[in-house]
Amino acid sequence: MQTYTRLDARSSDFEHAFRALLSAKREVSQDVDDAVGAIIADVRGRGDAALFDLTQRFDRVDLRASGLRVTRDEIAAARGAVPDRTFEALKLARDRILAFHERQKPADQFWTDALGVELGWRWTAIRAVGLYVPGGTAAYPSSVLMNAIPATVAGCERVVIVVPTPDGVLNPLVLVAAELAGVDEIYRVGGAQAVAALAYGTDSIAPVSKIVGPGNAYVAAAKRRVFGQVGIDMIAGPSEVVVVADSSADPEHVAADLLAQAEHDAVAQSILVTDSGDLADAVAAAVERQLAALPRRAIAGPSWRDYGAIVLVPDLDAAVPLVDRLAPEHLEIIARDGDALARRIRDAGAIFLGPHTPEAIGDYVGGSNHVLPTARSARFASGLGVLDFMKRTSVLKCDAAALAALGPAAVALGEAEGLDAHARSVAMRLKG
Amino acid sequence: MQTYTRLDARSSDFEHAFRALLSAKREVSQDVDDAVGAIIADVRGRGDAALFDLTQRFDRVDLRASGLRVTRDEIAAARGAVPDRTFEALKLARDRILAFHERQKPADQFWTDALGVELGWRWTAIRAVGLYVPGGTAAYPSSVLMNAIPATVAGCERVVIVVPTPDGVLNPLVLVAAELAGVDEIYRVGGAQAVAALAYGTDSIAPVSKIVGPGNAYVAAAKRRVFGQVGIDMIAGPSEVVVVADSSADPEHVAADLLAQAEHDAVAQSILVTDSGDLADAVAAAVERQLAALPRRAIAGPSWRDYGAIVLVPDLDAAVPLVDRLAPEHLEIIARDGDALARRIRDAGAIFLGPHTPEAIGDYVGGSNHVLPTARSARFASGLGVLDFMKRTSVLKCDAAALAALGPAAVALGEAEGLDAHARSVAMRLKG
Repeated sequence: MQTYTRLDARSSDFEHAFRALLSAKREVSQDVDDAVGAIIADVRGRGDAALFDLTQRFDRVDLRASGLRVTRDEIAAARGAVPDRTFEALKLARDRILAFHERQKPADQFWTDALGVELGWRWTAIRAVGLYVPGGTAAYPSSVLMNAIPATVAGCERVVIVVPTPDGVLNPLVLVAAELAGVDEIYRVGGAQAVAALAYGTDSIAPVSKIVGPGNAYVAAAKRRVFGQVGIDMIAGPSEVVVVADSSADPEHVAADLLAQAEHDAVAQSILVTDSGDLADAVAAAVERQLAALPRRAIAGPSWRDYGAIVLVPDLDAAVPLVDRLAPEHLEIIARDGDALARRIRDAGAIFLGPHTPEAIGDYVGGSNHVLPTARSARFASGLGVLDFMKRTSVLKCDAAALAALGPAAVALGEAEGLDAHARSVAMRLKG
Repeated sequence: MQTYTRLDARSSDFEHAFRALLSAKREVSQDVDDAVGAIIADVRGRGDAALFDLTQRFDRVDLRASGLRVTRDEIAAARGAVPDRTFEALKLARDRILAFHERQKPADQFWTDALGVELGWRWTAIRAVGLYVPGGTAAYPSSVLMNAIPATVAGCERVVIVVPTPDGVLNPLVLVAAELAGVDEIYRVGGAQAVAALAYGTDSIAPVSKIVGPGNAYVAAAKRRVFGQVGIDMIAGPSEVVVVADSSADPEHVAADLLAQAEHDAVAQSILVTDSGDLADAVAAAVERQLAALPRRAIAGPSWRDYGAIVLVPDLDAAVPLVDRLAPEHLEIIARDGDALARRIRDAGAIFLGPHTPEAIGDYVGGSNHVLPTARSARFASGLGVLDFMKRTSVLKCDAAALAALGPAAVALGEAEGLDAHARSVAMRLKG
């Protein structure tokens, strides 16, 4: 049986083995692009009729009977189906996510420079946004909160959810979370057809200007295709955690955190980086012990064995460049100098500090967003936030004196670039 | 001969005609995706050798002889080839763009909430970014400044330019602008092969984490394909200006501004929205008169005739919703209540206010960025800025008391989502 990968930074083949870990191909790339192209064309051409037919085919649901839009009565009924303990936890999560994201609202800036030019920019919300919510077992109410709340904080007027309901099943937790988050419209349609409907609109679903949220290969391919017609967030890949720990860490806790990541997906990746051989051994043993009792061991086991790793480093200083190269979605640091270490890390989606901050706190109730850059994209991307639902308009105003000061340089550059109409539009005002 | 479009908001078929204006298909969609896929695979497989062969084929240049990287000597020689007047204008532009973008640097935020949870986020620069610069006549030094300066302000360590040199021709202005902007490396390669080299790296070109900049259909398709492996900016479409003006505007100035946009590209779009029939007539006449004397009339003429428009509105209040629907890249407002009107516009890339602010000032020396959302994407996108070259890492830290306060809700949500390992990673710490 394959086991997790164990690397030692002091061994001569470490660089080679670490590169293999970095480049492990975790995504099964399905070639669905042609199928997705046809689905998008169908929805653009036939609108609702295409949504009805495709949903009948893929989800075995007759939307002509049930209606595309989820009704107020269904949302009220969902509230009744959710235990109070869960509802209260969702409300706590909602309140904390709201408070965190309120702080992300950007400020406009306007100033007048030494030449008298008035400059600045203004932020405004995107009017209408769509959130893709996966159906079935991956329909997580926490993700509904994390995707929708930044949009409502931004001030989007229409926050629209699309969610597939295979065989008619719709998780009541999703509806309750949507209600708590302030979602305006919910449609029971999924896949590439839902993305096409959001991008181009149908009689029943008015188009939006941006689409966010995770989905399967069809959804990802559809988002890639409609990008430009609408904005999209990142294309989500498989998820990962890196735990940096020294001998102060509790091996049972570390093992539990590695498995919390591994249970998401058989291609999720959990990595421990430590300077303690004893901790490494204890964590490896604890992982096996905890796995045996885990309901989702059929997912977490293969994830750990195929993609899990323990990396031994001579000291935690040596962990810093390795973490940056991994650019993990989630980084936990459980070490004596944890805070100082955290400040030296540059490429990570989110950092969870100290022994009392398991990543699962951040998944649910910390307040920060759990939609984070996966698959090493923390090198260039951020977690979801309020700015993803706003856009900036720059403003420029010259008076005659400012134009007189700047104009000649603009004329020179327009002429140098061979754009005479540019130069003339400035030059004729300088004469006046 | 076709002429520009003239609409009157008071006519009964206005809504229909305005919709046609909105949906005018200005892009020629070339089906280059398969070719691009093959080029990317070739560069990934053969690295520099593929770059050499493809450049020989497409640009008729032997890079094995000239070298991929532009040398210090070539950059020094370029400075000698640029007239002082142009060089000084570029320096003024550089200084103003720098000053503007310095104000966009985001601040980190950290706070402790009522439960004792430490929260916040930190911004860091993307380490390495690539700028695509088109070759030939579209090699604009101003665009080099606009793309590179936000990256250097953000603090990117490697700012890399790729630029094709068809038949060996390389615009010295591009090299001088790159030098002024603080670009670190310049490679004479273009097309999909350049995008592939930036995304995946070759022996000569180390990979970057994000690619920005405009390009032809091949470049756009390549950026779409490598998105995920690296970050990308928007897919640039044809450019447009909307001028909102009342009878206070000088028709010659308005005409010049419409033509400055039209000379970019035969599919550029220039639209005047006015409440003055007299201004409309005078502008239409001035456009024809100025066109006759314009060096680039073979481009600006077809642009104006095929896509240009004058829209008459009963008053400028009626212009506001029309402008938002057009979501123009550039908006000029030349009207008595211009400032108040500008505040009511929501969807525009950049606003140029008053009679002394031709858009060409913003193209060159205003200081704000001229890389702006085209083709109605101002509904959801912003102009290029410092944030495009940075990413945010969130940080969360609980102590034992904070975990005790938050933990039960996290356990409840983990269990409700069927993610027991999440719940257990929290629950086992609550016992301790």
